[in-house]
Amino acid sequence: MSTLPIGAVSVPTRARVVMTDAPYVLDPIGWVESPLVDPSDAPKQGDEGAPDAWIVIDDTFRTAIDGLEAGTEALVLTFLDRADRGTLVVHPRDDPSNPVRGVFSTRSADRPNPIGLHRVEILGIDGTRMHVRNLEAVDGTPVVDIKPVLGPADAR
Amino acid sequence: MSTLPIGAVSVPTRARVVMTDAPYVLDPIGWVESPLVDPSDAPKQGDEGAPDAWIVIDDTFRTAIDGLEAGTEALVLTFLDRADRGTLVVHPRDDPSNPVRGVFSTRSADRPNPIGLHRVEILGIDGTRMHVRNLEAVDGTPVVDIKPVLGPADAR
Repeated sequence: MSTLPIGAVSVPTRARVVMTDAPYVLDPIGWVESPLVDPSDAPKQGDEGAPDAWIVIDDTFRTAIDGLEAGTEALVLTFLDRADRGTLVVHPRDDPSNPVRGVFSTRSADRPNPIGLHRVEILGIDGTRMHVRNLEAVDGTPVVDIKPVLGPADAR
Repeated sequence: MSTLPIGAVSVPTRARVVMTDAPYVLDPIGWVESPLVDPSDAPKQGDEGAPDAWIVIDDTFRTAIDGLEAGTEALVLTFLDRADRGTLVVHPRDDPSNPVRGVFSTRSADRPNPIGLHRVEILGIDGTRMHVRNLEAVDGTPVVDIKPVLGPADAR
């Protein structure tokens, strides 16, 4: 399933081959445009001083952003393609005085599956371009998913 | 880079080949064990009635869970391998009376890159087995990442 091209239209699930032991391939749905170029200049988290940035959605996925609105928050998932996937333990926040811990108890970018999770504020949407605040990913980072922030269970 | 095996030890980034235009492959780091078998029985979100479940970490990644603790919350990322990746718009919560919206403004499992994001409570850890509450993924779902829930910026 994971190697099939992603189409612009809905395809019934029953037409798909399910390969539960296959590797799982992510296809970018867009890209980050940001003044941040060097990862060493990026803050550890978006609310620690990231500049405003753009998420540029591939035109194939234009309809998939319907319903996202300026003034709301969203979770942006990226693939941190510069990360070291062999890292299993780190000094949290790159501070050698912090005792070593497993990467799953930290937000280290270096981890087996380096998916970045960013809570952003949507400042505006212009066609397939989303202007966002609090995104610390560097310019050119592939975006793989966007999700709404969930409110209380009775308001979903 | 994405097709290299994931080792149990840290490898310097400079030894890796960076292929920024490659497809991005996820390798499961573990699996869900849950009484939930049929996706149609699963609640829409973990806090809407999911049974307690286990996350079984592959032994390769044993050290990467150091620092996760019972009584804390964590974000579990899964790959929803039964999802329809061609779906771009849905009726939210599968209710036909809800107007169609783009999947990125919903938590639909059917989406181009079907990464599940689950906020769970860790009830206990026994070796490489994590007992968790509020996980609505079905039995056998591959787990690709675990992250801590971030507290306030001054407490990270």
